[in-house]
Amino acid sequence: MNLAPPPHRVLRLPGVLSLDSGGSLAAPAVAFETLGELNARRSNAVLIAHALTGDQYVASPHPLTGKPGWWTRMVGKGRPITPERHFIICANVLGGCMGSEGPASIDPETGRPRALGFPVITIADMVRAQAGLLDMLGIERLLAVVGGSMGGMQALQWAASYPDRVRSVVAIATAASHGAQHIAFHEVGRQAIMADPDWRRGNYLAEGTRPARGLAVARMAAHITYLSEAGLTEKFGRRLQERDQLGFGFDADFQVESYLRHQGISFVSRFDANSYLFITRAMDYFDLAAAHGGRLSQAFMATRARFCILSFDSDWLYPTAESRRIVQALVAAGRHTSFVELQSPHGHDSFLLDCPAMNRVVDGFLRAVEAEL
Amino acid sequence: MNLAPPPHRVLRLPGVLSLDSGGSLAAPAVAFETLGELNARRSNAVLIAHALTGDQYVASPHPLTGKPGWWTRMVGKGRPITPERHFIICANVLGGCMGSEGPASIDPETGRPRALGFPVITIADMVRAQAGLLDMLGIERLLAVVGGSMGGMQALQWAASYPDRVRSVVAIATAASHGAQHIAFHEVGRQAIMADPDWRRGNYLAEGTRPARGLAVARMAAHITYLSEAGLTEKFGRRLQERDQLGFGFDADFQVESYLRHQGISFVSRFDANSYLFITRAMDYFDLAAAHGGRLSQAFMATRARFCILSFDSDWLYPTAESRRIVQALVAAGRHTSFVELQSPHGHDSFLLDCPAMNRVVDGFLRAVEAEL
Repeated sequence: MNLAPPPHRVLRLPGVLSLDSGGSLAAPAVAFETLGELNARRSNAVLIAHALTGDQYVASPHPLTGKPGWWTRMVGKGRPITPERHFIICANVLGGCMGSEGPASIDPETGRPRALGFPVITIADMVRAQAGLLDMLGIERLLAVVGGSMGGMQALQWAASYPDRVRSVVAIATAASHGAQHIAFHEVGRQAIMADPDWRRGNYLAEGTRPARGLAVARMAAHITYLSEAGLTEKFGRRLQERDQLGFGFDADFQVESYLRHQGISFVSRFDANSYLFITRAMDYFDLAAAHGGRLSQAFMATRARFCILSFDSDWLYPTAESRRIVQALVAAGRHTSFVELQSPHGHDSFLLDCPAMNRVVDGFLRAVEAEL
Repeated sequence: MNLAPPPHRVLRLPGVLSLDSGGSLAAPAVAFETLGELNARRSNAVLIAHALTGDQYVASPHPLTGKPGWWTRMVGKGRPITPERHFIICANVLGGCMGSEGPASIDPETGRPRALGFPVITIADMVRAQAGLLDMLGIERLLAVVGGSMGGMQALQWAASYPDRVRSVVAIATAASHGAQHIAFHEVGRQAIMADPDWRRGNYLAEGTRPARGLAVARMAAHITYLSEAGLTEKFGRRLQERDQLGFGFDADFQVESYLRHQGISFVSRFDANSYLFITRAMDYFDLAAAHGGRLSQAFMATRARFCILSFDSDWLYPTAESRRIVQALVAAGRHTSFVELQSPHGHDSFLLDCPAMNRVVDGFLRAVEAEL
């Protein structure tokens, strides 16, 4: 149950990072990984933005689980985003638990974990921290910022916050704001965590406990939303788990129960409960139109970036209708926009899975952007 | 937090009730309410089957909450099911917590609540208990059995278990089996309850605790599935709760959060956590085709009942496709079947809400059945 900090690669941003809440963080840590080399013109940097439970280990083994990076299908040699052409950067988001400043970080003033003393952050705050990292790495302008789900929100936010620093944006399976159903599912997860007595009003690290059961339930509820009903039916249906007939008890009779329980338990070994609270909150607060006078197109007026918007037909969490709304705003703002709805049976999780059509689209899009350099 | 047993109207079934699990219950209690009078021919009895969290108070005030019955829009004077023409019976399901034999009942052998010693029951077991009640009331044949959601499952099961005892079946917003996604959502709820230390491995009643936080989380997760995304958006959107701007904290910023928390808390005051475990399990075990050699139509071969199958276009929990599957099997079995997909923005919960079209359809269907008597 101990999430000992591995030796992440970390930089501390100089000075103070101002936040949307009005609060600030002094010299916040940003943990990141890179792949490939920055070219002489400094024109080949690609920033990958990760999703809610992702991290900087996009294409290198995860130090806690030992598993391959979470997006090796998209990032790596021979992939659309490749160290052969690109300098690839992926940073753990602000509020995360893999080395970037977050609720598990030690507050220098108290010597104790920040816990709920960590400020509530936003997607724009995450992007601010990434921009600070790029400053330190000497990267003025990105070839592309690429992300799925919450990563896609960050990618869109990049174009709004730093219009001149992005040549292109790839936003996959995402939305420009969080709706009532999104907030509702997140709230269930937060309540599950906060209902766990081992959460200790957020002070579990200092008090030597871990709200593992609450965090596992939160993960289970969220995980259902990442899959499609058809995908679940195909993968599990009503098949039984290591038995020939119903057990007439509360053990996992069905494979889908066993699978969900495993998802919950394995998540707890690599993720921090307070980070889950802060990051889901940041997503719920995301509303790019509201931050631009209520008109989404206003968010994209200042940039000259090219956009690639992708959705999946079986994604009911961030359905194609959400992508269409983004595309409409982009085109209204005069932005060059490529929009593709991909077919996949796997729901929201499709962007993490094998999807050759997605790879072809991203590859073609990035090569076209590079050809214009 | 005390669920003191109100003076429910209860009969104990004579003898022993055999269960699908192979277990049995001696003289199980069945709590019920009736409305109207049985006519001389005993031909006007209508059985209402309730849903997961429903009870026998279909059209009379709830003894714990004081609220009106849960289906006063469908049942009552001037309604499609009316004491002016019908003898209306609604029984608390086996496994329930409003007076019927369930995990909160006292085990006569130990003098303590049955808790997890209660046998895992099925939808067919619930129907067996209802048939036993009808025997005691001297009702050989029902004019109709009517139910929505889990009530619809019972209605379908009635036709399969007691083909000669039902003249007609009205099954609304339901399915003939529980799929992987249904099981997954239920499993999240069960895990939330069992993760609560106050659950005490099911013995919370004897030990003087209540897994209120776990049960509230379970209800919150389930409640999202009862509503449509569009309905949530229309009702709440991103509107804030009693504030002008984001609070940058974990209080309920958004109305939808406040609403969900209220749903969770108020549920705990009227429902028993172990009943939630047992009844969700019964639903997950429901697979009418599997119980009939893998062919759903076989379940409807023996009956001569007329069927009315209703679905709602915004119901994503038991979508119209599930009803179509039932209708296909019914027609293949040669049953007279009326099938209507109703328009409603309110998702699965539509059957409990004001829906004049649903009332007109049920009224017309029942009058036609009565005209054939």
